[in-house]
Amino acid sequence: MTPANRKVASDLEGFFAREEPRIRRELDEFLRIPSVSARSEHNKDTERCAEWLAKQLVQIGMKATIHPTAGHPIVVAEWRDAGPDAPTILVYGHYDVQPVEPLELWTSPPFEPTVRDGKLFARGSVDDKGQLYIHVKAAEALLKQRGRLPMNLVILAEGEEEVGSDNLAGFVEKNAKMLAADAVVISDSSMFAPGQPSILSSLRGLAYFQIDVVGPAQDLHSGSYGGAVVNPAMALARILSTMHDAKGRITIKGFYDKVRKWEKRSRDAIKKLPFKDRTFLHETGATALGGEDGFGTLERIWMRPTCEVNGLLSGYTGEGAKTVLPSKAMAKVSCRLVPDQDPQQIAKLFTAHVKRVAPKGVKVSVQYIHGGKPWRAELDGPLYDAARLALRAAFGKEPVIVGEGGSIPVVGDFTRVLETPVLLMGFGLPGENAHAPDEWISLENFSKGLRAVATLYEELGGGRREAGG
Amino acid sequence: MTPANRKVASDLEGFFAREEPRIRRELDEFLRIPSVSARSEHNKDTERCAEWLAKQLVQIGMKATIHPTAGHPIVVAEWRDAGPDAPTILVYGHYDVQPVEPLELWTSPPFEPTVRDGKLFARGSVDDKGQLYIHVKAAEALLKQRGRLPMNLVILAEGEEEVGSDNLAGFVEKNAKMLAADAVVISDSSMFAPGQPSILSSLRGLAYFQIDVVGPAQDLHSGSYGGAVVNPAMALARILSTMHDAKGRITIKGFYDKVRKWEKRSRDAIKKLPFKDRTFLHETGATALGGEDGFGTLERIWMRPTCEVNGLLSGYTGEGAKTVLPSKAMAKVSCRLVPDQDPQQIAKLFTAHVKRVAPKGVKVSVQYIHGGKPWRAELDGPLYDAARLALRAAFGKEPVIVGEGGSIPVVGDFTRVLETPVLLMGFGLPGENAHAPDEWISLENFSKGLRAVATLYEELGGGRREAGG
Repeated sequence: MTPANRKVASDLEGFFAREEPRIRRELDEFLRIPSVSARSEHNKDTERCAEWLAKQLVQIGMKATIHPTAGHPIVVAEWRDAGPDAPTILVYGHYDVQPVEPLELWTSPPFEPTVRDGKLFARGSVDDKGQLYIHVKAAEALLKQRGRLPMNLVILAEGEEEVGSDNLAGFVEKNAKMLAADAVVISDSSMFAPGQPSILSSLRGLAYFQIDVVGPAQDLHSGSYGGAVVNPAMALARILSTMHDAKGRITIKGFYDKVRKWEKRSRDAIKKLPFKDRTFLHETGATALGGEDGFGTLERIWMRPTCEVNGLLSGYTGEGAKTVLPSKAMAKVSCRLVPDQDPQQIAKLFTAHVKRVAPKGVKVSVQYIHGGKPWRAELDGPLYDAARLALRAAFGKEPVIVGEGGSIPVVGDFTRVLETPVLLMGFGLPGENAHAPDEWISLENFSKGLRAVATLYEELGGGRREAGG
Repeated sequence: MTPANRKVASDLEGFFAREEPRIRRELDEFLRIPSVSARSEHNKDTERCAEWLAKQLVQIGMKATIHPTAGHPIVVAEWRDAGPDAPTILVYGHYDVQPVEPLELWTSPPFEPTVRDGKLFARGSVDDKGQLYIHVKAAEALLKQRGRLPMNLVILAEGEEEVGSDNLAGFVEKNAKMLAADAVVISDSSMFAPGQPSILSSLRGLAYFQIDVVGPAQDLHSGSYGGAVVNPAMALARILSTMHDAKGRITIKGFYDKVRKWEKRSRDAIKKLPFKDRTFLHETGATALGGEDGFGTLERIWMRPTCEVNGLLSGYTGEGAKTVLPSKAMAKVSCRLVPDQDPQQIAKLFTAHVKRVAPKGVKVSVQYIHGGKPWRAELDGPLYDAARLALRAAFGKEPVIVGEGGSIPVVGDFTRVLETPVLLMGFGLPGENAHAPDEWISLENFSKGLRAVATLYEELGGGRREAGG
C-alpha cells in the first residue's frame, strides 16, 4: 500500500513533463475531426474519428477493435497482460461531439483547436475527447515507463453519446464477458471549481421529446384566416405553459411519484460546498436565478427533475414581418430525471399530459427521441479510496463529493448489465460550454488529469510499483 | 348613362381578345423580378422592379415618375388629358412581394411564372403585381382603342406594402395635391368565391410585434444548469399563453375598448353569403375550426380582432436532439384590428401586457414593427354603382358586399389624407396562398378583371362612349 499523502510517481511525472507537447499535438488532431454524431452529413467524419482513435490505442500497445453498430461504431481496446488475478478496469468515454450551431457565436472555428488564456477551445475539447484522451495517454505513460500496466485495462469509446447511446446498452449486454470488470471509470464530467478535484456521486437521467403541432395544411395569410383557424404556434405555447405551476413544480400527473428523497446528510454536504448563487448567476449571464420553490441552486440542479424547452420553431423567423398563420409549430422538450424516475415511464406520463392539454383544431404528436436513467453512487470501498488518493496526488487538494445535473445514460447500463461500481472522475470546469459555442478544457486540468489517472491506475493495480522505486 | 345590364364594350373586348397573350407575357416579366421588400439582399431587384413598371406605364402613354423614399421607391404615373371637368381616379397598388421561404414547399420556383390548371403560380401573381397590372392594361386598352381615357388617371404603385408602407403616408401627405382624386380604386383583395364578383367593404388593421426573451448570456447545457436558470423559451410560451382566455377572447387589458359594434343588418348580410364552414375547413386542411366564442367563421375573420403568433424561434431546431438551455427565444406576434382600434394604442396595451406577465430571471422586450388602421366603407353613391355595373358586365353576375380579414393599411391613409372614398375591387380567390408557398392568380379572373376595370373606367368617366358606338 502507498501512503495516504503520496505524490505522483516521479517516472510518470518525468514522462508527462517530457511528452506533453506531443500529447497535445495528438489531441489537436483528435479534435480536428468533426465527429458530430447527430448529423448524418458527418457520418464519414465520425467513422474516421473511430479509426483514428483505434490507431492511437494500437500505437500505445493495446489491442484495438472497431465494432460496427446500427449507428456509429464502438471502439474497444484491451490490455490483459496483468494476468487473471489482477483487477480489470473498464474505462468508458465517447469520441462523438455535439453539433456546433450557431456557428457565428464561436470565437475560433469549432474544429480548429485554439489556445486562449490557458484554455483549449474546440468542440469536443472537454466533452469528451479531451477527457477520454487523458486515459489513453495515462495508460501510455505506464506502458512506456514500466513496460506494463499494473491491472488489466479495457477502454471502450462510443460514437453515439450525444445522440442517446442507442446501440451501447445492446453492445454491453452482448459483450458482457469481454467487458467484465472490477470497476468502470469515466471522465466525462466537471470539477466543482478550478483547483478543486471532485468525485461525482450522482447524475440526472434524461427523457428527450419533440412535440409537433400541425394546424392548417400550409402556412396561411393571417389576415384572411386569422381568428377562425387555430394557430398551432399559439397552441404549442399553451401546451408548454401547462408544464409548471406557479411554484416551479412540474404538473405532469405522476411525475414525482418515483422521486427518491435525499437524506439530510447529503443535503447538508451540498450546503457546505464553496458555492455562491451570485457567482453562478454571473457565470450564466442571466438577470436572476429561478426554479422550483424550496430548493437551493445546487439542489435544483443535482436533486430535482426538470422539464425544459430546448428548441422552438414555427412560421416566419427572418428579418422584418411576415403576416403568416403558420401551418405547424415544433418544440424540443426534455426532462432531466432523478433516482428512481424511469425515462420510459416518464415518456408515457409526458405524452399523456400533452395529449390531455392539446387544444382542438390542431394535431399534436409527441416523439420520444431518447432517454437515460438517473444514477447515484455507493461511495464506500477501495475504488473511491483510490480515486481520492490519485486526485489528491495530482491536484494537492482533498476532492469533494458532488452531484451533476447532466446525464451520462451509460452509467446506468454499466451498473445494470455489468453489476460493476462506477467511478466518475471528471476534469471539466464550470462554464466550459460543453454543449454551446466556445467549448473549452482547462490545460492545467488536462495536465493534472493525466497524472491523476496514471496514479489511479497504479492504485487500482495494487499501489505504487514505481520502476526502481 | 348606360343601361344597368350593359356588356363590356365590343372594341375593348376585341382589344383584350387580341392582346391578352402579349399582356400575359409582360406580366410574366413583371413576376420574374424578385422584389421582396423585406429582404435587403433584394433591394436592387426591388429598385429594378420599380423601373420596369415605370417603363411600362410610359409605353402605354402615361407620364411616369419614380420617387425615391427612405425605403423602396414609389412609382406614380399620370394621364390628365380628360380635362379639369372630368373626374380623377387614383389607382393604388404595390409592386413589392412577400418573402418566399420556405422555398422547398413551392411546386415551381416562386419567380418562374408557371401555369397549372388555369392558375398562374408565382410570388406576387395575385398579391399584388397581377392585380396592379390589370389596371395598367385596362388603361392601355382605352388609350389604344379610343385614343384617350374618359377620366383623368393617376396610378400610384409602392414598394413597401409587405413591410408596412412606412414611407407611403408621408408621401401621400406631401403630394396630396398631385394625388387629389374623386375616388381611389384598389385591386389587392379576393373575390368571395370563383365566379362571384365582390366589393370589399371592410378591412382589418394590423399591429405587428416581435417579442424577445433573453435569459443566460449564451446557450447552456440543460443538464448542468437546467432547473436553476429560467428557461427563456418556456418563459416565452408562458407569456404567449396569457394572450387568450378559455373562450378565445384576448385578455390584454383595454384591447376591446374601441371595438365598434356591427349593426344587425351587416351581420345578417354575412349570414346570407354562400359560405360553408365545412368547405372553409377543407380549404385550410386543419382538423377543426376555432376562435372566439359567440361568432361565426366570417364574423371572426371580418369583424373581430385577433392576436396571433406568426413565428417562433429558440435554441436547437435541427435534426435529432440537443440538450441546450437556450439563451434566447423570439416570437413574432401580430394583432388584426377592427374599427375603431388604433394600432399605436394597441401597441401600448400589448407592450404593457407582456411586461406585466413577464417572469423574473429573463429580459423581455417588445418591438412594434409596423401597423395599419382598420377601415369600413360607405357603400352609397356613384363610385359603388359604377363598380357594381362593371363587375356585372365582366362576370355576368351581381357582386356581393364582403369583408376582408387582411389589412391594406394605406386605405386608412387615403381616407384620412385625401378625404376620398375608396373602392376595393379585387380579383384574387380563396386559397390563393398570397403569403404562402405556391401563390397563384386565376387566369379567368385576370382576364375578366381586365374587362371589369376597363368598364369601370368608362363608367367613372361618364358612361359608355365607345368609339363609333
